[in-house]
Amino acid sequence: MIRTISLKNKINELTKPWSPIEVSRVNDQVARLALFDGEYRWHKHANEDELFYVYRGSIVIRVKGHPNIALHEGEIAVVPKGVEHSPKSPEPSIVLMFEPQTLNSQGDY
Amino acid sequence: MIRTISLKNKINELTKPWSPIEVSRVNDQVARLALFDGEYRWHKHANEDELFYVYRGSIVIRVKGHPNIALHEGEIAVVPKGVEHSPKSPEPSIVLMFEPQTLNSQGDY
Repeated sequence: MIRTISLKNKINELTKPWSPIEVSRVNDQVARLALFDGEYRWHKHANEDELFYVYRGSIVIRVKGHPNIALHEGEIAVVPKGVEHSPKSPEPSIVLMFEPQTLNSQGDY
Repeated sequence: MIRTISLKNKINELTKPWSPIEVSRVNDQVARLALFDGEYRWHKHANEDELFYVYRGSIVIRVKGHPNIALHEGEIAVVPKGVEHSPKSPEPSIVLMFEPQTLNSQGDY
């Protein structure tokens, strides 16, 4: 049985910000959905790039050594492995992330 | 420099159906965008699962040994590696795919 997953339904499972839920596994990767609201702390993932896709809303990812990344609905950016970053969102936004299953969303520290 | 990619802009680069273009690389994976319109032939990818996310429109993926997968806007499904499939779309639809960079969109044969 091949499941179909509706992002609209998944959004209803998001109860608190900065707490990604699993949408789907594919190969050794995972798509996760999260509510971004307010500011999240600085962190990094030593071995994993992280793709951010803004499904609803608008976010900013602050990135050490790079200009801020402003991402609006329908926009994508990839934070390379080892790069310290801190996402924030001035309004509640829904973000789809695509990353290795080994990635700890909270960062290495 | 970390690039931001707008799916809306990428759509303008889609000139013909069933011809995925690269959106972004992330780890050893790639996000590709394609216009689905009409029917595509049966094929499979021996070693790679393929994630389909319908960005605009509505598609059907016929899958050997499984019921058809009907996917509407905002819906996701994963076709497991080795499973023969044939996508079709009754209307022009825009689909984002997540898959290993090794995956040949045209299939192994």
